[in-house]
Amino acid sequence: MKRGAIQSLRAIRHDTARDAIVIIDQTRLPHQLQERTISSLEDACEAIACMRIRGAPLIGIVAAFGMSFALRDGWAREDAYRRLLATRPTAINLQWALQRVMQATDGVAASGQMTAAATVSRQLLKEDAAACSAIGDHGQGLLETLWRRRRGEGAAALNLLTHCNAGWLATAAWGTALAPIYKAHDAGIPVHVWVDETRPRNQGAALTAWELGQAGIPHTLIVDNAGGHLMQQGRVDACLVGSDRTTADGDVVNKIGTYLKALAARDNDLPFYVALPVSTIDFENRDGAHGVSIEERSPDEVLSVQGLTDTGRQSGVRIAPPGTDAFNAGFDVTPARLVSALITERGIVEPNRDALRRLLDQRVPSPAAS
Amino acid sequence: MKRGAIQSLRAIRHDTARDAIVIIDQTRLPHQLQERTISSLEDACEAIACMRIRGAPLIGIVAAFGMSFALRDGWAREDAYRRLLATRPTAINLQWALQRVMQATDGVAASGQMTAAATVSRQLLKEDAAACSAIGDHGQGLLETLWRRRRGEGAAALNLLTHCNAGWLATAAWGTALAPIYKAHDAGIPVHVWVDETRPRNQGAALTAWELGQAGIPHTLIVDNAGGHLMQQGRVDACLVGSDRTTADGDVVNKIGTYLKALAARDNDLPFYVALPVSTIDFENRDGAHGVSIEERSPDEVLSVQGLTDTGRQSGVRIAPPGTDAFNAGFDVTPARLVSALITERGIVEPNRDALRRLLDQRVPSPAAS
Repeated sequence: MKRGAIQSLRAIRHDTARDAIVIIDQTRLPHQLQERTISSLEDACEAIACMRIRGAPLIGIVAAFGMSFALRDGWAREDAYRRLLATRPTAINLQWALQRVMQATDGVAASGQMTAAATVSRQLLKEDAAACSAIGDHGQGLLETLWRRRRGEGAAALNLLTHCNAGWLATAAWGTALAPIYKAHDAGIPVHVWVDETRPRNQGAALTAWELGQAGIPHTLIVDNAGGHLMQQGRVDACLVGSDRTTADGDVVNKIGTYLKALAARDNDLPFYVALPVSTIDFENRDGAHGVSIEERSPDEVLSVQGLTDTGRQSGVRIAPPGTDAFNAGFDVTPARLVSALITERGIVEPNRDALRRLLDQRVPSPAAS
Repeated sequence: MKRGAIQSLRAIRHDTARDAIVIIDQTRLPHQLQERTISSLEDACEAIACMRIRGAPLIGIVAAFGMSFALRDGWAREDAYRRLLATRPTAINLQWALQRVMQATDGVAASGQMTAAATVSRQLLKEDAAACSAIGDHGQGLLETLWRRRRGEGAAALNLLTHCNAGWLATAAWGTALAPIYKAHDAGIPVHVWVDETRPRNQGAALTAWELGQAGIPHTLIVDNAGGHLMQQGRVDACLVGSDRTTADGDVVNKIGTYLKALAARDNDLPFYVALPVSTIDFENRDGAHGVSIEERSPDEVLSVQGLTDTGRQSGVRIAPPGTDAFNAGFDVTPARLVSALITERGIVEPNRDALRRLLDQRVPSPAAS
């Protein structure tokens, strides 16, 4: 599928006629491309908690629309806020987007709150698409520099490794980590992506592999155990991941397993890039990564794996003996010292407090800086 | 199940009456405990290649019995050797055990070769059980020291992390990495084991969790992505893994993903122990880890996951879109610099050429040394 065709697909779209949003149900991918309409607070909470939509930016946008539906349906503003906030604890965008709605509706008469919330929601959607596109542009510059060097060394392709899904399915458009890859591919750079399957929920195998396949970008699925070996073998040129929350000091809270890849990148002198909209930076965080609540999810996600059986049915299979205990943390923390650079919509910055503070103040370095 | 009861189970036993070996078919675990009789060269090759039995020591033993069946059945010695050697390329024990049979049958009249091969095979079985028991004793000492310190700090249990399966299912008895854990548990040390599921074949979820469950040892299944996070959180006291091949310089070739856990252990100042019989040391290796052939297996193991469906049927489920490429290396190399100590049947040694050379010469340090 050509770029234009992919761009016609969106993880979320606003159906103004029905005052609803239409999402791609990501729990059905890659086996089924199925849309789902979200038109109430309950729908929004369920879709976020069950991960029908996921990805920090998209969670924020859906939560904002959830607020607007709640206000339309007569929910108390604070009740709706609390319910939505409780759906996923780690992604900072959820809190950030909800606060945007709270601010926009603060002091507004009840009759006008729903309109104000809807306006903010649509604005978030537009802003995120623009931010991701800008992340793609900045990141593409990095990849071009990397590719010029690797091509000079005789490489046939630029090999990138990514973890989880930080593509257009996780955002309003383009993605975060995948945006530079899409733009580099469009610019004719021969990218090849190693896709971590990303247990327990396999967002790499189910979503990233599907996205890249739709876009015609060469990619190879690997188990989460394999990245270190590939780096040792010189078969990875850089890692590129997203972030669910970035602390004010530049520590990156992202899908569990990200830290292990960052360690391997460092051990093999490879760049480890994190792509994120500024909205995922937790400037309020004062006590570093220890202050971040790491979501623990159901052990069932570890004890079984979802997929398509040989009879074509979507099913989970149990992989452990009955009665086995399992632990399921959704995220880990990659210390800033292991991160080569943060790719944001405002430019590329080093992962430290001063650089991030300047970013907030919009005194950003030029996109060409790395 | 009490220790005595576990000890009645063996990954392999010799059925002298039928001149066959009886194995537990590990591809059926943990859902079904099913024995399988191996009575020919073909049976042995199939069982090793399809991983009905696996684990470096057990592979060697089954290969040796395969040689004895082949010689009984009139195969040319070199043909049988070559066929067995081709089944799995990485585990050095395969080559080592086959060479033991070749030496024992060298210059022996055809009529006596089968007897000589069978004698060596039975000997390997006994030697491995004894080696693993000794590994357990030496390793138990390390764990006792660690536990005394942790108990002094107020810990309720000694938390160990293991990758893949290096238990009695991988050996003639006891296991390598799990032997110290079994012995520590028997000695009353409150061990708790974090079990990496170990994609793609999930030997952790299917075999290690099952073994530990049978032995009544507290354990928790985790995805391969989780170990780094647990170490950062102070919830791991040491890592303990096996080895499929250890180079003369102390680099450890083990199940893919081992390297990532060793990096995390180092980053969190935690001991990373590797337990192995001396037979897995590749003293011939002169060019380090680069000289080791890393087995690549079918992409299907990555593209699908085996388990039990909700209707109780063993099945694979496909986790990626149709047409997705996958890469499936079976092992990676953990550089000696990341290994705290090697636990062998001859004692505990540092992972370096001099220490390993002394081990070969049997001038070994006392078990108490670490």
